[in-house]
Amino acid sequence: MTTADAAFVDPLLDPIFMDADMSALFTPRAFFQRMLDVEAALARAQADLGVIPKSVAKPIAAACRADLYDFNAIGTTATDAGNLAIPMVKALTAAVDGKAKGFVHWGATSQDIVDTATVLQIKDALALFDQRLRRLGDGLATMVKRHRRTPMVGRTWLQHALPTTFGLKAAGWLDVVLRHGERLDEVRRRAVALQFGGASGTLASLGEAGMAVAERLAKHLGLTVAATPWHTGRDRVAEVAALGGLITGTLGKIARDVSLMMQTDVGEVFEAAASGRGGSSTMPHKRNPVACASILAAATMVPGLVATMLTAQVQEHERAAGTWSAEWPTLPDILKLTGGALLRTADLIDGLEIDARRMRQNLDATGGLILAEAVMMTLGERIGRGEAHHLLETASRKAIAERRHLRDVLANDEHITRHLDEGTLKRLFDPLAYLGSAQQFVDRALAAYRRRPKQTKPRER
Amino acid sequence: MTTADAAFVDPLLDPIFMDADMSALFTPRAFFQRMLDVEAALARAQADLGVIPKSVAKPIAAACRADLYDFNAIGTTATDAGNLAIPMVKALTAAVDGKAKGFVHWGATSQDIVDTATVLQIKDALALFDQRLRRLGDGLATMVKRHRRTPMVGRTWLQHALPTTFGLKAAGWLDVVLRHGERLDEVRRRAVALQFGGASGTLASLGEAGMAVAERLAKHLGLTVAATPWHTGRDRVAEVAALGGLITGTLGKIARDVSLMMQTDVGEVFEAAASGRGGSSTMPHKRNPVACASILAAATMVPGLVATMLTAQVQEHERAAGTWSAEWPTLPDILKLTGGALLRTADLIDGLEIDARRMRQNLDATGGLILAEAVMMTLGERIGRGEAHHLLETASRKAIAERRHLRDVLANDEHITRHLDEGTLKRLFDPLAYLGSAQQFVDRALAAYRRRPKQTKPRER
Amino acid sequence: MTTADAAFVDPLLDPIFMDADMSALFTPRAFFQRMLDVEAALARAQADLGVIPKSVAKPIAAACRADLYDFNAIGTTATDAGNLAIPMVKALTAAVDGKAKGFVHWGATSQDIVDTATVLQIKDALALFDQRLRRLGDGLATMVKRHRRTPMVGRTWLQHALPTTFGLKAAGWLDVVLRHGERLDEVRRRAVALQFGGASGTLASLGEAGMAVAERLAKHLGLTVAATPWHTGRDRVAEVAALGGLITGTLGKIARDVSLMMQTDVGEVFEAAASGRGGSSTMPHKRNPVACASILAAATMVPGLVATMLTAQVQEHERAAGTWSAEWPTLPDILKLTGGALLRTADLIDGLEIDARRMRQNLDATGGLILAEAVMMTLGERIGRGEAHHLLETASRKAIAERRHLRDVLANDEHITRHLDEGTLKRLFDPLAYLGSAQQFVDRALAAYRRRPKQTKPRER
Amino acid sequence: MTTADAAFVDPLLDPIFMDADMSALFTPRAFFQRMLDVEAALARAQADLGVIPKSVAKPIAAACRADLYDFNAIGTTATDAGNLAIPMVKALTAAVDGKAKGFVHWGATSQDIVDTATVLQIKDALALFDQRLRRLGDGLATMVKRHRRTPMVGRTWLQHALPTTFGLKAAGWLDVVLRHGERLDEVRRRAVALQFGGASGTLASLGEAGMAVAERLAKHLGLTVAATPWHTGRDRVAEVAALGGLITGTLGKIARDVSLMMQTDVGEVFEAAASGRGGSSTMPHKRNPVACASILAAATMVPGLVATMLTAQVQEHERAAGTWSAEWPTLPDILKLTGGALLRTADLIDGLEIDARRMRQNLDATGGLILAEAVMMTLGERIGRGEAHHLLETASRKAIAERRHLRDVLANDEHITRHLDEGTLKRLFDPLAYLGSAQQFVDRALAAYRRRPKQTKPRER
Repeated sequence: MTTADAAFVDPLLDPIFMDADMSALFTPRAFFQRMLDVEAALARAQADLGVIPKSVAKPIAAACRADLYDFNAIGTTATDAGNLAIPMVKALTAAVDGKAKGFVHWGATSQDIVDTATVLQIKDALALFDQRLRRLGDGLATMVKRHRRTPMVGRTWLQHALPTTFGLKAAGWLDVVLRHGERLDEVRRRAVALQFGGASGTLASLGEAGMAVAERLAKHLGLTVAATPWHTGRDRVAEVAALGGLITGTLGKIARDVSLMMQTDVGEVFEAAASGRGGSSTMPHKRNPVACASILAAATMVPGLVATMLTAQVQEHERAAGTWSAEWPTLPDILKLTGGALLRTADLIDGLEIDARRMRQNLDATGGLILAEAVMMTLGERIGRGEAHHLLETASRKAIAERRHLRDVLANDEHITRHLDEGTLKRLFDPLAYLGSAQQFVDRALAAYRRRPKQTKPRER
Repeated sequence: MTTADAAFVDPLLDPIFMDADMSALFTPRAFFQRMLDVEAALARAQADLGVIPKSVAKPIAAACRADLYDFNAIGTTATDAGNLAIPMVKALTAAVDGKAKGFVHWGATSQDIVDTATVLQIKDALALFDQRLRRLGDGLATMVKRHRRTPMVGRTWLQHALPTTFGLKAAGWLDVVLRHGERLDEVRRRAVALQFGGASGTLASLGEAGMAVAERLAKHLGLTVAATPWHTGRDRVAEVAALGGLITGTLGKIARDVSLMMQTDVGEVFEAAASGRGGSSTMPHKRNPVACASILAAATMVPGLVATMLTAQVQEHERAAGTWSAEWPTLPDILKLTGGALLRTADLIDGLEIDARRMRQNLDATGGLILAEAVMMTLGERIGRGEAHHLLETASRKAIAERRHLRDVLANDEHITRHLDEGTLKRLFDPLAYLGSAQQFVDRALAAYRRRPKQTKPRER
Repeated sequence: MTTADAAFVDPLLDPIFMDADMSALFTPRAFFQRMLDVEAALARAQADLGVIPKSVAKPIAAACRADLYDFNAIGTTATDAGNLAIPMVKALTAAVDGKAKGFVHWGATSQDIVDTATVLQIKDALALFDQRLRRLGDGLATMVKRHRRTPMVGRTWLQHALPTTFGLKAAGWLDVVLRHGERLDEVRRRAVALQFGGASGTLASLGEAGMAVAERLAKHLGLTVAATPWHTGRDRVAEVAALGGLITGTLGKIARDVSLMMQTDVGEVFEAAASGRGGSSTMPHKRNPVACASILAAATMVPGLVATMLTAQVQEHERAAGTWSAEWPTLPDILKLTGGALLRTADLIDGLEIDARRMRQNLDATGGLILAEAVMMTLGERIGRGEAHHLLETASRKAIAERRHLRDVLANDEHITRHLDEGTLKRLFDPLAYLGSAQQFVDRALAAYRRRPKQTKPRER
Repeated sequence: MTTADAAFVDPLLDPIFMDADMSALFTPRAFFQRMLDVEAALARAQADLGVIPKSVAKPIAAACRADLYDFNAIGTTATDAGNLAIPMVKALTAAVDGKAKGFVHWGATSQDIVDTATVLQIKDALALFDQRLRRLGDGLATMVKRHRRTPMVGRTWLQHALPTTFGLKAAGWLDVVLRHGERLDEVRRRAVALQFGGASGTLASLGEAGMAVAERLAKHLGLTVAATPWHTGRDRVAEVAALGGLITGTLGKIARDVSLMMQTDVGEVFEAAASGRGGSSTMPHKRNPVACASILAAATMVPGLVATMLTAQVQEHERAAGTWSAEWPTLPDILKLTGGALLRTADLIDGLEIDARRMRQNLDATGGLILAEAVMMTLGERIGRGEAHHLLETASRKAIAERRHLRDVLANDEHITRHLDEGTLKRLFDPLAYLGSAQQFVDRALAAYRRRPKQTKPRER
């Protein structure tokens, strides 16, 4: 294995997500091969149309294999050249014999190659996103169905508020994940566009043949033809970046919730136990939220990278001096972080251990106060809201002061018992009885899940 | 006029864009009124359904007029309360008499009100964006048509590269603007959703009536009903922010191009002259790109704000402690900056003065070198590419060394004249003759413009 | 009170921090007055030196009162003019009579005025920061001393790890806060510099008198004289912004810790109770971390704003077209958020209620496992680390399985009791006995606190 | 050479700056070796003090050579473990024989190792920054001295404003660069601090010996001892990041200026010509600002990365779950980009070709209007400012309308010639005669350059 194939190229990014599929898309070799793929398809398209001699396409394509080149040497000269395509074209030309040498990279500009290679990476990355979003959606839907009636504390401002169910919490996560699926489809439709404009965006050196070559080239690469060259119209790549920012934010929210529920002090859910994972022999009670931390790291890093991509849209005239280059390392980092976070979250959800008993216990941690509102609402229907509020407030204070369960205090208060008998009181303290529209929300999220298109495919625009 | 109505509330942001329509959406009064609109619609919806007494809706609605309240006093207490809806509800309740007092804000949580008020602002802001994007598209399309054959220098890396036309440059701008129209429509469909979940997202205190109230309330406000409450599922607002980032980046690109073309050293286009605008009595040659600067300022500011919105998606459990609050000032700033930049860019394009003569002169600034490639391509067809390249390279060096026009050098070089006669040479130095697919790209952009949907309307999802 | 004085100008930012002192620095009126202060001082400095007639300084100064002007009208024209100083100078000139009219703004450029007015705001803002950082340091030092021996759970990865003390935790906060004091002093020394360069940075129109005017003007305003005009050398303001980012990050960390300790599930500390603050009549157990949320909001918002300021350093030639404008609203927002967060954190720390009993209870929540390592270390000294590790691991698993306290398990295990008697075991389960260097760390932080310079003053450079 | 040594590890970041010295600091192997250096020094320090047996330090140190390990394998398991130190310690322990095995990593926590290894990288990176900042300062000072009287157009808003000199422009760059030297020294003093706190920041398992080990360890590594462990007090690393943001912003400003001056339309300066650099055989007039583009790319990317580091300061309790991990790839990227941009800028300045003749020509491009103010000021002294202004305005309009040089118009206007004779007029149109305090500003910047400390060394704090 050579340098360029290394799965572990980054000592600090890769440990966050060991994501072989996504990393493989972004090795030096992989990018190099993408550029060569574009050159080969270009020669083939032009030979098809007679723009260059039919005979030269084959030898050019034969030289378009990344393993023929020394990436380190080429990468080193890219700094002075200004981008990676320039020395690549030089190396490719040197590798091609005779007549074909003169027809390498015909009519194209280096940005055509770099951008189109990037679009090919985007296409593959989005396919992985799609797959993983679907897997995550499936995992969440299963969890929603299983736990739609598992009561737990609803927490606002990090405080116990009112009961909810774990299924509803997960339905909220699912609902957002499904919208990301919609967005992915929309973004993809715009993003998978060929870049092909030549030296200043007119395809001048191809004379009348420019559009025909573009159409054929796009077809060979499985891309759409943009209305105009987009050398300095960067909305497509910026939008892919923004999608990454939206997705990782959602995954960060899920990971935050899970890590908070995993606190030793809460103990409601746990990442799947695995050997060598978050454990400690001398601290056996520790279950470190290792996956959550990775996901949260991605959610912390991606927004700044998205800001860079948005800023970099300001590109001068027909080719930028600086802002284009700023995209090169930034977009792949966003894609790797988003893809990695998606994989980790799908794994997290699939393996999540849920302690429904502890959830139930935590509901009781405030001695029934969490259901004071439920009692008050029912009591209010009988004696008026104001009076009910007053009685409950007094009883709650008493419960706190005397460290008793609110139900006991109420059961011994004749102002209450004259309106609410023991059975009623007991029922009112059942968290499942005070869930309002929770089940309907769950149903709505599941309905959206079922409506999810079977398979999203890039459509032409 | 009171404080809350002030058009000029920000000493430093407002001078960048004096945008009365957009500013009016975001005054303290306007936001306050939006919150009251939600409360009024809530009372009305609940009265419709018999959830609260029919008689109380009217007095509540009557109190929902912002001019009845002292915003400063209310704003001051919001800090301790935690958000602006809490003291607003208190003030509203105080303003309502008798029985109705008990039914203000029934079943809702303060975030329901703040978020829905924000969505109402978003809806209006997006309508302005749409209008302005269309106006900008119209202006650009007119410019494209008028200048599709106005030759100018194509510049890459800030260097003269090959000829292009001003119409093609503008077509590149137009192409992106049209895609923003598509995005706006997609984003809007998702964004205009009611927030309504009650204290912990279950609408518990409304018992069985929750969904019915939600449907009715959404209808009164012209919003869609979300599948689940989205108190901590923030993709909708984050996506609106990201759209702002995508749009301002494009506008920044246009403004950068225009400001570079406006350089004293280039002089190809100018912002419309206006009294008190960018002029200087002692420096009458100055035409400051004042509008461009505003637009570029927006493009510089918005990405960081978008990063904040993306980061803020990580919200805990059923209501966040901190990240939700971070959205409050950030999203309005993004909307104001995007809206302002759109208005300024539409004005800029409509008023742009184009100096086609100077464009033509600048094409000649390099003494014909800009068309060396055109000559070489034609010559190459006759004597082979290698030989043609060699001859042109020699002639170009000579032209530079002797400060002569390349055409003169070539016309006096018999290696050239034996293949290219005077007429051919003259034609080869016509920039309009070396534009490749430029006109087809222009046509494609205009076709996309004509395909633009007549009017985008929010559809239900 | 007119618009420009409004304390409550921003419906969404101000509710996060109602900070009258900081807001007062940044009202439209305040900024306007600062600009007028610069003009008055300029006239006075030039009259002192005979650059303008002595008689005109007084009438100019007399007109330099913000309440004489209609900010809304002036702000409105700023958009076309390009910045706020241009219409201000026009209004000021109109307000001055006779001969003096010709000497308003003599030799200055509008950026000189806007930047110097901003520096005056920075100076005042940094003075408030200093005050508040000191107050926060005092509060933390008091807390450190009081709780240096209050044991609590040390948490890593949100899991119970080993014991620590609340004093050590606070010492870690204090340590960082003290370094911010150092930074503030360093940044201030560079930041409080006069901007004065005239139309293109040469003070050309002042002939030989430029430097003398600059020196005198700086003296009148209490600023230093920069080595060169810094119209497009923006490191000073960017550094002030970065300082804001560093400080709010630290405050966010404190607020995160406090909000996590305030969780209903943890209950170790609480924000000071206040009427109308974070309470809920029907949920009396809730103690919302309202102040923490504000501080965390600031920590979420400032980084993106700092990125804008860093990006905006790229300013063209002698005056920028766009990036300078981007600073205008951004820097004040950073200063307001940092100042507000400092005030809120100082208040938070001063009012924090600490429940040492609950801290102690939480230490026991894992049934002694948190001290397994302490036992193992002592046992290891006697029987070797490997054997000790093995015994403790077995005992810990047993404790978990049987839901017993680890101490009980060990006290009934003769493999243990033959080496550790009851008294030793008891002592080993005292969290205060397993704190390593905690007290020394506390002493080191307090020593740094005592070394803190009594008062930081801007020094010339 | 194995993967981990690869100079060219990043297909997209490295081409922007081929910077062997900086890249070498951040290879997987280099980071791994740093971690091992910390482990070796720890064993040595503890053996010195008798905390572990003297005999074990040597075998541990002998195993602390990165080339003994398979980084890919170790990196792969880091994802599950949570950080890179955990599998490293496991591998190191496996590599050590017998008794020593039990004393590897004694008393430390994995974050101690990762953070201290990072500090060692920071220390080396800052040394490179210092070197390069000095070289850049030297280059700029030379340029300032050489061109202090080379007149050129001062440009504001990208428009010709008044004359300046190239030396003054460079003095403005130099002035900022010198302040960065000051900042570097201040930041370094705080940053080079040992991280050493053990499992929860108390060094509990070292009993009484903690501080002594810390002191000795710091000495071995050439670091200072922090007052308290800073596992979640991240101001030091955030400040290093912010410094990177401040520096790259300045470099971006220089690169922007240079790239604008390099425009074909301006032609005042050029990057040093180099083979394979920015050239084009068919477009010999092109001199692409390749180095400027790299520097601008860095200035575009770093701000978003700094925002991430600022955001990541919010770390929970005694060890964070997520935000710490976010620092890992972010800080090295900032350091690499800053270091690379410094190198490129120092090279750029050293090799910059200046075309003083073109600068002089461009001053005349507006036909003398650029000196209208100079004439007006002198005339004003004789006939009053108002009258002078009126005459110059009229003459300027005439010059523009008739496309004549302003000097000619004035020389033929008797209203003028009666006050200004031919010699005076000629002198007034000498740009060097209207430079105000330019030479004094230059002297002040050079004085600051001479005051620069000879060598900055980290001092203890």
